[in-house]
Amino acid sequence: MSILVKDVELDGGPTQIYIEGGRIVEIGKRREADTVLEAKGKVVLPGLVNLHTHASMTLFRGLGDDVPLQTWLETKIWPYEAKLTPEDIYWGAKLACLEMIKTGTTTFLDMYFHMDMVAKAVREMGLRAFLSEGFIDLGFPSRAQEQFRAVDESNRKIEALKSPRITPALGPHAIYTVSEDSLRRFRELADTKGYLIHTHLSETKREVDDCMAQHGLRPAQYLDKLGILAKDVIVAHGCWIDPSEIEILAHTGTKVAHCPTSNLKLATGQAMPYAALKEAGVVMGLGTDGAASNNNLDLFEVMKFAALFQKFAHRDPTVLPAHEAWQLATLGGAQALGIDAGLIQEGRLADLILVDLRRAELTPRHDDVSNWVYSAHGNIVDSVICDGQVLMKGRRVKGEAEILEKAAQMARGLVSRE
Amino acid sequence: MSILVKDVELDGGPTQIYIEGGRIVEIGKRREADTVLEAKGKVVLPGLVNLHTHASMTLFRGLGDDVPLQTWLETKIWPYEAKLTPEDIYWGAKLACLEMIKTGTTTFLDMYFHMDMVAKAVREMGLRAFLSEGFIDLGFPSRAQEQFRAVDESNRKIEALKSPRITPALGPHAIYTVSEDSLRRFRELADTKGYLIHTHLSETKREVDDCMAQHGLRPAQYLDKLGILAKDVIVAHGCWIDPSEIEILAHTGTKVAHCPTSNLKLATGQAMPYAALKEAGVVMGLGTDGAASNNNLDLFEVMKFAALFQKFAHRDPTVLPAHEAWQLATLGGAQALGIDAGLIQEGRLADLILVDLRRAELTPRHDDVSNWVYSAHGNIVDSVICDGQVLMKGRRVKGEAEILEKAAQMARGLVSRE
Repeated sequence: MSILVKDVELDGGPTQIYIEGGRIVEIGKRREADTVLEAKGKVVLPGLVNLHTHASMTLFRGLGDDVPLQTWLETKIWPYEAKLTPEDIYWGAKLACLEMIKTGTTTFLDMYFHMDMVAKAVREMGLRAFLSEGFIDLGFPSRAQEQFRAVDESNRKIEALKSPRITPALGPHAIYTVSEDSLRRFRELADTKGYLIHTHLSETKREVDDCMAQHGLRPAQYLDKLGILAKDVIVAHGCWIDPSEIEILAHTGTKVAHCPTSNLKLATGQAMPYAALKEAGVVMGLGTDGAASNNNLDLFEVMKFAALFQKFAHRDPTVLPAHEAWQLATLGGAQALGIDAGLIQEGRLADLILVDLRRAELTPRHDDVSNWVYSAHGNIVDSVICDGQVLMKGRRVKGEAEILEKAAQMARGLVSRE
Repeated sequence: MSILVKDVELDGGPTQIYIEGGRIVEIGKRREADTVLEAKGKVVLPGLVNLHTHASMTLFRGLGDDVPLQTWLETKIWPYEAKLTPEDIYWGAKLACLEMIKTGTTTFLDMYFHMDMVAKAVREMGLRAFLSEGFIDLGFPSRAQEQFRAVDESNRKIEALKSPRITPALGPHAIYTVSEDSLRRFRELADTKGYLIHTHLSETKREVDDCMAQHGLRPAQYLDKLGILAKDVIVAHGCWIDPSEIEILAHTGTKVAHCPTSNLKLATGQAMPYAALKEAGVVMGLGTDGAASNNNLDLFEVMKFAALFQKFAHRDPTVLPAHEAWQLATLGGAQALGIDAGLIQEGRLADLILVDLRRAELTPRHDDVSNWVYSAHGNIVDSVICDGQVLMKGRRVKGEAEILEKAAQMARGLVSRE
C-alpha cells in the first residue's frame, strides 16, 4: 500500500510525500500511488508522541476532580478500578485512541491493566503504542508472583499480534508500590527481552520523604542503587528530583516524561526542573497522563501547559520556548521510545499529520511553531497517517459513532455497578 | 426577529427556548418563530464573557514569544504599535471577533487604540462589547489633554452607533503610565457619564515596588487614596495584591479580571490570590488578555488554566473547582460588566451557545461542567446567539474567509512596513 500526500506544505513550500511500507520513501516528486491524499493548503507535521498516559482511564473522565490525590484514589479511582472488566478496558482504550487520533497523536506509551485488551483496541485503531502492564505488589511476594504472571501473559498476547506498531513494555508502577526484589527482576526482564521500562518517579514530595525515611536515599538514587536506571527507562513526572538525581538520570541515559497538566491539577507543589534536565542533556518528552487527572489527551494543549508552567516555575519567560515544546512533543518523545519518528524525513516512519491552516487561531502566520504550541488545540488536525496508514481524513475516523456510544455505555455501567 | 431554539438540552433534559427582542422570553414551550434552530443532541449554555482583552492584537499573534516583558514591549510591541493604522485595528478586531465567536464568547471587555474601528468591527460581527480607549499620558499634561480628546472622540463615535450591544468604557492603562491628575479625571468622567473604568493592576512585582517607592503605598491603596476604586471599576491581573488590598477591592466593590494564561506566559511570578478574593466576596471574571501574550482568545482554555494554576499556586487541588471556573467565565464576567447575561433564564439577555456533544473529549458524561472546563476547547461550540441574533450556525460564520485573508494581509504589511 502506497500513499502520495499531494501538494502539501513542508518547511514553507509545497511538496509531495511518497509513503510505502510504513516509511516516508521520497519527498519532492509526484509519484503514482495506491492512495492520493490531496493536501493543498495543508501543512504536514510529524505525528505527536504521548510519552505517558493511562488510555483506558478515559472512562473516568470527570469523576473525582478537585479533590486531594489520596481522596481521589481512595474514594474514586481504586473502588472503580476494582470493578473494571476487560471489556471496559477495551472500550476505554478505543475512546482514548479516537481522541488521540483526533488531536494528532500517532504514538503513545501506556500503563494500565489487561493490556492485551488495550492492544486489541490499538490494533483496530491503527496507532503506534508501547504498552506496559501496570505492576503493583505492595511488597507481598505472592502478589508479585501473580503480577509477574500477568505481565508475562499480557506481553505474550501482545507479541502474538505480530503488529509492527505495538510493542510490549514493562510497567513497575512506582518505588512505593513495587518491592525491591520485583524492581530488580524488571531490570533482568528488560535486559533479557529488550523491553522498555516505564515507571512513575518523584511525582509528590511525600514519595521523596517516604523514600528518604525508608532507604536513606532520594527516589532516583534508590532506583540507581538497585541498578534499574538505564537508557531503556522512561520515568514519568520527576517533579521533585534534585540536582544529584538529575546527574544520575543524565549519566544512566534515563528518559523523562513531563506531564505538566496533571502536575498542576493535582497540585504536586513543584515543577519538573526542565532547565537543569535540558542542561544535563536528559532526553525528555511530554505526556498527557490519564484522563482522570488531566482530563483530555490533547498533546497540543500539553505543549502550551508545559511551556507556560515552566516559564512561571523558573520565573523566566525565556524558558521552554515554543520550538522546544514542539521538539518535546515530537522528536523528544520519539527518541525516548527509540523510534524513527518525530521528523518528516525520507527513511523515517510515516507517522504524520496534516493541519488545515484556514482558521482564526492560526492567523496570521508570523510564526507557525508558535501557533501550533501557543494558539492551537488538537482540532486543527485534519488528517492522520500512522505507519503509512490513513487513520483520519477530513476529521473523519472510522467507527467513531459506535465508539462514543459504547464507551459512554461502559462508563455508565461502571459507576452504577455494585 | 424571534428565534426558537428547538429540542435543546438544558439542565439534563430537552426543552424549547423562545427568544425575542434580544432576550430569552420563554423556556419550555414550542412557539412559532421567525427562525427555528434545530438543536436536538446539543446542549445550551450561556455565552462566555471575556473580561480583559486587547482584541486587535490578534495581528501580533506569534510575534515576540518567549522573551522578557520589557524586551517584548520595547523590541516587538511598541515599535509595531507605533505603525498601526486604523485599518489594521479594524481587521485585527474582526479576526478577534471571529475567533471569539468560534470559541463561544459573546461579550468582551476591550482596551486598545482607535476604538471606533473596533466598534465598527464588533457591530458587523454582532458580539456584545465594552470598549475602552487605552489612555497613556506618562505624566505629561499635554499628552493627557490630547489623550482625553481621543477618549472623548472615540466614545462619541461609539455612542453614535446607537448599538445596544456596544458600550464605551474608560481605559486608563495603569498607575505607572497614567498621572494622578488624569486618574482623578477618569473618576469624574465615570461619575458623570456612567462609564465603566477598565485598568491593569498589580500585574508585576516591579509595579508594586515602584508604587511603594513613589507613593509609599501599594497599587490598590494608591488608587483608593485617589478615590478611583468603586463598583464600576474592573482591574485586570491583580497577581501581586496583598490582604490589605483585597480588603480595599472588597469594600469598594471593585471587580477583578483573572488572566492566568498571560500571567504564566509572562512569568509574573505570583498568581492572583483567588481564594482570598473569593473569601472577601470580590466579583471576579476571566480574561484571555491580548493574543500577543496568550496567544489565543479561547475562554474554554482559560477556564482550565485558571483552575489548574490556582490549584498549583495554593498547593491545594480543591481550590477553584470546575463549577467555580465555569461561574467565573459566565456569570462572574456578566456581573462585573453589569449585564443580565451568564445564565439561561427567562428575562435574561439572549447570549447563548450550543454545544455538540458527540465528541471524544466530551465522552463519557459523568460531569458536564468538568467536561466544559477540563476537557473541552472552544471548538465544541456549534452555534452562537448574541442579543437574539445568530452569529454562528454549524460552525459557519459569515465572511470568515475574507476576514482570515485580510487580517493575514494586514499582519504581513505591519511587520514589513518601514
